[in-house]
Amino acid sequence: MAGKLAEFEPIFFPKTHAVIGASNSPTKFGGRFIKVQMSFGYKGTFFPVNPDESEIFGMKAYPSVRDIPEPVDLATILIPAPAVPQVLEECLQKGVKAAQIITAGFSERDEDGVRLEKEIASIAARGIRVIGPNCFGIYCPRGGLTIPPGESLPKDSGPVAFLSQSGGYGVRVPRRGDGLGIRYSKLVSYGNAVDVNECDLLEYLGEDPETKIITTYTEGVKNGRRFFELLKKVSREKPVIIWKGGLTEGGARAVKSHTASLSGQAQVWEALFKQTGAIAVGNIDELTDMTVGFYYLPPIKGRKFCVVGGGGGIGVAAADACEKAGINLPVFSRELQQKLLRIVPAQGASVRNPVDVGSPFPNPQMLKAVLETVLTESGVDGIIVSEIEMSGWAKQSGQDWMRAEMLKQNQQVPVDVRNRFGKPVIMVLPVEGNGPEFAEAETARRQVADFYLKQNIPVFASLERAALTLSRFVGYWQNREAISKQ
Amino acid sequence: MAGKLAEFEPIFFPKTHAVIGASNSPTKFGGRFIKVQMSFGYKGTFFPVNPDESEIFGMKAYPSVRDIPEPVDLATILIPAPAVPQVLEECLQKGVKAAQIITAGFSERDEDGVRLEKEIASIAARGIRVIGPNCFGIYCPRGGLTIPPGESLPKDSGPVAFLSQSGGYGVRVPRRGDGLGIRYSKLVSYGNAVDVNECDLLEYLGEDPETKIITTYTEGVKNGRRFFELLKKVSREKPVIIWKGGLTEGGARAVKSHTASLSGQAQVWEALFKQTGAIAVGNIDELTDMTVGFYYLPPIKGRKFCVVGGGGGIGVAAADACEKAGINLPVFSRELQQKLLRIVPAQGASVRNPVDVGSPFPNPQMLKAVLETVLTESGVDGIIVSEIEMSGWAKQSGQDWMRAEMLKQNQQVPVDVRNRFGKPVIMVLPVEGNGPEFAEAETARRQVADFYLKQNIPVFASLERAALTLSRFVGYWQNREAISKQ
Repeated sequence: MAGKLAEFEPIFFPKTHAVIGASNSPTKFGGRFIKVQMSFGYKGTFFPVNPDESEIFGMKAYPSVRDIPEPVDLATILIPAPAVPQVLEECLQKGVKAAQIITAGFSERDEDGVRLEKEIASIAARGIRVIGPNCFGIYCPRGGLTIPPGESLPKDSGPVAFLSQSGGYGVRVPRRGDGLGIRYSKLVSYGNAVDVNECDLLEYLGEDPETKIITTYTEGVKNGRRFFELLKKVSREKPVIIWKGGLTEGGARAVKSHTASLSGQAQVWEALFKQTGAIAVGNIDELTDMTVGFYYLPPIKGRKFCVVGGGGGIGVAAADACEKAGINLPVFSRELQQKLLRIVPAQGASVRNPVDVGSPFPNPQMLKAVLETVLTESGVDGIIVSEIEMSGWAKQSGQDWMRAEMLKQNQQVPVDVRNRFGKPVIMVLPVEGNGPEFAEAETARRQVADFYLKQNIPVFASLERAALTLSRFVGYWQNREAISKQ
Repeated sequence: MAGKLAEFEPIFFPKTHAVIGASNSPTKFGGRFIKVQMSFGYKGTFFPVNPDESEIFGMKAYPSVRDIPEPVDLATILIPAPAVPQVLEECLQKGVKAAQIITAGFSERDEDGVRLEKEIASIAARGIRVIGPNCFGIYCPRGGLTIPPGESLPKDSGPVAFLSQSGGYGVRVPRRGDGLGIRYSKLVSYGNAVDVNECDLLEYLGEDPETKIITTYTEGVKNGRRFFELLKKVSREKPVIIWKGGLTEGGARAVKSHTASLSGQAQVWEALFKQTGAIAVGNIDELTDMTVGFYYLPPIKGRKFCVVGGGGGIGVAAADACEKAGINLPVFSRELQQKLLRIVPAQGASVRNPVDVGSPFPNPQMLKAVLETVLTESGVDGIIVSEIEMSGWAKQSGQDWMRAEMLKQNQQVPVDVRNRFGKPVIMVLPVEGNGPEFAEAETARRQVADFYLKQNIPVFASLERAALTLSRFVGYWQNREAISKQ
């Protein structure tokens, strides 16, 4: 282990962890933090630090970090901002390798905060790595660390990393990912980034063998040139999905009072995405969708797709959504259309691409024959199956004439076809009923989505979201291929 | 009652209803249709027509519509396409006032279908109004009619009408509206529109006192000039929200094989929206959101809003989303910022607008004071409250230190503030956890959404969707005001 991997080992996998500002009261932040970490299952040794307590949750408490009798890998600092520099200085004296400063109230707040942050920076420069301040810090399941509100985040690891300049999104993004089967290697809410910044973390994640997909919520970068070069390098090996907050004027203003970053101009960022191959997304939904794409899909290098749906209006919407997003739905040859016409029902179907199988409740054999015929003869790069009814919803809506068996069979069809042909299949399963009275239907829909995700078939909530994600996904792989040929 | 209201009375409120192609078998379409209508609660008299049966579900069956001993308001035709012209001719002979032809297989299919459709048109021209063919027909709760897959649609009426050239969206749109508390006056899936078309229906709905908001899924129009003039006229009285399918090249192609319409060029439609004041939306999510906006909001004629959220990254995303959509978040005056700084927590908050109250779990008194201060002093046209935690989710995620009481109090704050100041409050409540394991959390979220909708406070699933809807909503009212001053 060398380079950033060795350097950041104490941050993500601390054997010893001092919590400065620990408390015995579970309603206080310093109590809650330690409770959350304990319940998350940290395997190393905690050293609570609090001059007013001798014991915290059954563990011996120390008046200062300097009183801890063993070496300390990581210190978490939870005390108020004005007291942070002195405590960090003590950490440095003690030889603590890294500190995460969760406390807010620094350069994002006022001039006093700017001054405090400068002190922190100069202490860090003398030999201790610092995450934060004004952040939620580290979530790293394999290291047994979680962010303060991250008690219920998954305890198992996965290939996705998330760098978040926002604490809030540091919670909300993995929470969304959780139910979609997405697991994380490391998540860092790094706030004001006084020392360890997005560049250091990007370099680390580029080297990290556990991380295959890098995602970020970024408000600003400290060193544009280094970020650019790193992004270019890392993107050749791993997709880097960037949600850049503050690209509008109002957004840039909000960035200033959030993490005190300089947001940068939209055109500069556009050029950066183009030249580095990093993938731009615009909000939390797009970030989640894009992660789902890279998590579950094999590389796709072509833009020709077929949409198979149940209902003609859906075909129109699919064609509109795909064309807007840059996904190509080629009109099928006359021969293929003739073949499909012999498979689909005589009424209400259409076979040019999109293929409308005539009803959201197709016969499973028919559906299978359509998908197989398309994959055998059309030369498309994949199939989007949109809004075919596959959950028990129909039954709940009183249409008990729909047999559960048929729905189950239809559910299996895209899996069988993907397995047989090895071509990507993408599912669109929209939320159809809102309101509490449709809660059972929504649970059924989620079970179907879960079934597909477990089969490595990605699921999206709308045609628009599927098409946009797919277009950016293919763009990444096309770009990577072009670079590898240079 | 005069004009279109009188003319279409037998279509929406038939006293007698012949079902041609009725069947005793509930698995056949002709059996299912009649079962669905019966269970929906039609108050008039059914006349099942089937030459092979003497009785259908306990009702006397007639060999032909001509054998029915009473006058017939509406005939529903379910028999195969080639037999339709003759049956329609019989309806005309009998003096039936209107027919809805559910059957597909006409001009959208092939040349034979085109010929059949021409025959239907010429029969209709001689004195019977025809809805369809290739459609789901009428859903009109007050008339006791529902579309074939609409058994579970609400039986109570409301102010929204929906004209759908797609049968599929004829089901899916009201199903989505259902759980959001939206109720319909009339819904018409009119398919190929051989006789009654979008213009007739728009004229009718313009006159209809029960209809306050008109929504459409439109693939093409038969008479562009008349549509334009009607849209201009009706939009001055009622919002007309149009989802135009097939505005891309691929979409237009799909339209051709769906309802055989000519889709029209995107620029033409853009000009039409601009000149008539009709509201353009691009997909089913936008259509639903826009309907929610008009359903729950009073007129808003200004674009200045304040976003109040919990967490700084959310403020940045809010600013980006609003600016992109054309909603203005004015920076607050120094005085107002000073006042707000005395209310919000010392750490992690920001008060320039967006206002970040520092946490998704704010203190209710603090939240209330923030909203009231903003509405008293900022001159904004309304407030968007974004992603403040108000459901029991936190508890489920193990954070049992959050008291349910506080969440309930926070829930009430936007209602109280809206009631006191009379200014619009808009809620953003995103789905935070996906997957079946978060189903309970989602149900809790829906209950909170329901609570707000019942208070006439609209709810949207993301900041982007709220901002886009709001921008179009304000645009409609600004336009209407400008016209009224001409």
